Amino acid sequence: MAENGLREKVLSLDSMNPWIKRLEYAVRGPVLARAVELEEELRQGVQKPFTEVIKANIGDAHAMGQRPITFLRQVSALCLYPELLSEPLFPDDAKQRARRLLAACGGQSVGAYTASPGIEIIRQDVARYIERRDGGIPANPDNIYLSTGASDAVMTMLKLLVSGEGRSRTGVMIPIPQYPLYSAGIAELNAVQVNYYLDEEHCWALDVGELRRALRQARGHCQPRVLCIINPGNPTGQVQSRKCMEDVIQFAWEEQLFLMADEVYQDNVYAEGSEFHSFKKVLFEMGPTYSSVVELVSFHSISKGFMGECGLRGGYMEVVNLDPAVQQQLSKLVSVRLCPPVPGQVLLDVVMNPPKPGEPSYQSFIREKQAVLSDLARKAQLTQEIFSQVPGIRSNPVQGAMYSFPRIQIPARAVQEAQARGFAPDMFFCLQLLEETGICVVPGSGFGQREGTYHFRMTILPHVEKLRIVLKKLSQFYAKFTQEYS
Amino acid sequence: MAENGLREKVLSLDSMNPWIKRLEYAVRGPVLARAVELEEELRQGVQKPFTEVIKANIGDAHAMGQRPITFLRQVSALCLYPELLSEPLFPDDAKQRARRLLAACGGQSVGAYTASPGIEIIRQDVARYIERRDGGIPANPDNIYLSTGASDAVMTMLKLLVSGEGRSRTGVMIPIPQYPLYSAGIAELNAVQVNYYLDEEHCWALDVGELRRALRQARGHCQPRVLCIINPGNPTGQVQSRKCMEDVIQFAWEEQLFLMADEVYQDNVYAEGSEFHSFKKVLFEMGPTYSSVVELVSFHSISKGFMGECGLRGGYMEVVNLDPAVQQQLSKLVSVRLCPPVPGQVLLDVVMNPPKPGEPSYQSFIREKQAVLSDLARKAQLTQEIFSQVPGIRSNPVQGAMYSFPRIQIPARAVQEAQARGFAPDMFFCLQLLEETGICVVPGSGFGQREGTYHFRMTILPHVEKLRIVLKKLSQFYAKFTQEYS
Repeated sequence: MAENGLREKVLSLDSMNPWIKRLEYAVRGPVLARAVELEEELRQGVQKPFTEVIKANIGDAHAMGQRPITFLRQVSALCLYPELLSEPLFPDDAKQRARRLLAACGGQSVGAYTASPGIEIIRQDVARYIERRDGGIPANPDNIYLSTGASDAVMTMLKLLVSGEGRSRTGVMIPIPQYPLYSAGIAELNAVQVNYYLDEEHCWALDVGELRRALRQARGHCQPRVLCIINPGNPTGQVQSRKCMEDVIQFAWEEQLFLMADEVYQDNVYAEGSEFHSFKKVLFEMGPTYSSVVELVSFHSISKGFMGECGLRGGYMEVVNLDPAVQQQLSKLVSVRLCPPVPGQVLLDVVMNPPKPGEPSYQSFIREKQAVLSDLARKAQLTQEIFSQVPGIRSNPVQGAMYSFPRIQIPARAVQEAQARGFAPDMFFCLQLLEETGICVVPGSGFGQREGTYHFRMTILPHVEKLRIVLKKLSQFYAKFTQEYS
Repeated sequence: MAENGLREKVLSLDSMNPWIKRLEYAVRGPVLARAVELEEELRQGVQKPFTEVIKANIGDAHAMGQRPITFLRQVSALCLYPELLSEPLFPDDAKQRARRLLAACGGQSVGAYTASPGIEIIRQDVARYIERRDGGIPANPDNIYLSTGASDAVMTMLKLLVSGEGRSRTGVMIPIPQYPLYSAGIAELNAVQVNYYLDEEHCWALDVGELRRALRQARGHCQPRVLCIINPGNPTGQVQSRKCMEDVIQFAWEEQLFLMADEVYQDNVYAEGSEFHSFKKVLFEMGPTYSSVVELVSFHSISKGFMGECGLRGGYMEVVNLDPAVQQQLSKLVSVRLCPPVPGQVLLDVVMNPPKPGEPSYQSFIREKQAVLSDLARKAQLTQEIFSQVPGIRSNPVQGAMYSFPRIQIPARAVQEAQARGFAPDMFFCLQLLEETGICVVPGSGFGQREGTYHFRMTILPHVEKLRIVLKKLSQFYAKFTQEYS
């Protein structure tokens, strides 16, 4: 009993898991919560200085109006309702793929559980896709685990990697700024987050000297065993050079670190001179000294790229050089969750095994895919162009991924005002922006940033004409904001 | 470096998360692994004493030949490929539901992320379903969280509930036998598993005296805070009486335990005189002394019932009397995983909001649903009938769920042989059964059982004629096995 005679809850803030209490996930944090409230107020007819809330907080292409790729959805619909296989509505190549996938499902139904790492033929298709991508370096379907989006796979690997107490707790090196799944996962598992800072002055490049600094400092209070890399970068949009990747691999090799490569934006590279290389490819091209030793996992997803199928929650990871005994443990661990959602597996398969030249859907598939990617490239450039004209905003080029992460100067008086209200200064900016313009972006503090610097992350996903308006409104608001607090 | 000069792996059995190493999930354990190998051998033409592997290890209705419910899949296909909305192929009520659901999706696409607890109108439909089920007791959509199958929701709640070190670690009371998700989740989170034994002599009934014993013993070495109930029972198939449920609630109230009610088999009740009551309904009918105090979460799933849509990974949980501050933490926690798979959310919605009398699909929907459920009832009875005729096998009635969990006598010589080969005796039996008959069932040791007793779990899902053959073959094998080792 509590002192007031009321019963205490069994589960309270005091008694709950403290590690869960600690975790934060800014992409769906307070700014989004307020955006959802504002949408509701608009629906109820409350007057606002804007007519629409624009959720530029999350890489959610379809929500921003991108249309699904026809062929992907045709195969999905056929798999869900195979009666359609006898209808002339669908092209033969879509039917052929649906039949092949259904034949691999228990009872020919996507409603059956699949093998826990995913349907075997899909894992084979993923392996072949990786081999094509990496210029023929072999990929083994047994090393591929399908997942419920990339987040699920990232958490699964972190779970395996985390151990120890006190000073022998596992340290996980993550970039700053980072995608907050990593900090949240590390908090949830009570591991130690080891920050290494990307170099904003050099297009958010990763610098191995900084890795070394971070590692050296961390060794005093934890056991760093994992190095996470996000390439192309989220939220930073940088694309790593091949040279940089070689340095990272060399470093992981020297320092005995397990490499986690988040490569979910591998299809989203826009800048001239930038090119995606997979860590696996670079590792194998560095020769057997490295390729037989460095333990690596790479993550991919159907939520990004040209398809943007976030809602289907599909993805995969490929493990390289994993200890076979540990791999058995991994297989056991994924079996508890039974299997990844089958519609997401199906859609992943079609992405991995798209229409081929000569097939009925080839032309339209390529046309739709290219349209999305060239549109994104245009928007990446537009974003940088507009931000670069605003005094006080400093934006690196969006070489890849789906975000701009500009640095903003926040006047000292605004910083004080924010602190008085209990907000981080960039959170204060983002909330004010939202209230006045309806534009929802995420404060840099949710991703991590160097002390005293402020940023926000904004997606480049709105339609190009709307994006232009959003960028202008945002820039105008920023000018007004800085003036007000100067 | 290891002593032999080879580099040690960063991630090895020695260095990995010890809690993951400890967990087991028998439903997809060694017996299934061997079954998959045998299937491959059959495909390669290897001669076996059987022509087909029958996977009676897991409640996977579609894999056993149950056909999907037409209306559910029509709505799903329409949502995935909305171009079909203009086709005359589909009934109007399916189109109406698809339009309504699409309107609630970002960009009208199931490829957009949804709110992290699930699409709002679906949570409203779930709340109305619960209210109808529970005779009008109110359900609040804000207390409903959609999930990636029930397993995901169970793990989420366990994560919140687990805390402490040493003797103050959270104890989680689970039935023995149990569904091994619970033991695996408890192991993974490093909580303390507190066993209470169901009463096999009384149809696997739950006895509050046994709860009391288990709690008393556990209090010496951990802090029991959670009581898990599976009703209808998995693997036991029992359906709890209303009286028993009241006793459980009284106990949870007295002992300050958080109640986790796994009610995924709520539509699967077959035995005359058995009826499903939800814990929420019983709690509220016990009056405000209890209903304003006892903290409860109930889990449901689209994988079981009459729909059996395991592959879509849909489900929900309803929380009752959760501390509002903890509920905020729960909302934060689910946001890290972004959202449950949208096709599973859509299918759940149609289950919660099925065709109504007068709508075009009503008759056929009811017919298909009833056909599945009456077929299952017949198979539940058949299973018990056949097992009850076999000397040495003792089977309780399958009152509900999808499994029989008969007790088998294993001759002392077979026990010795099993131990010599490093197997639990019932694992040895199940592996031998598989090798000789192709029938894949799960040993009782994977679910827990009283020391010295042996069981196996088998689904009742094969087609009735095949089920009859499976049951006969299994009984004959058992007779032969006991003779061989007598």
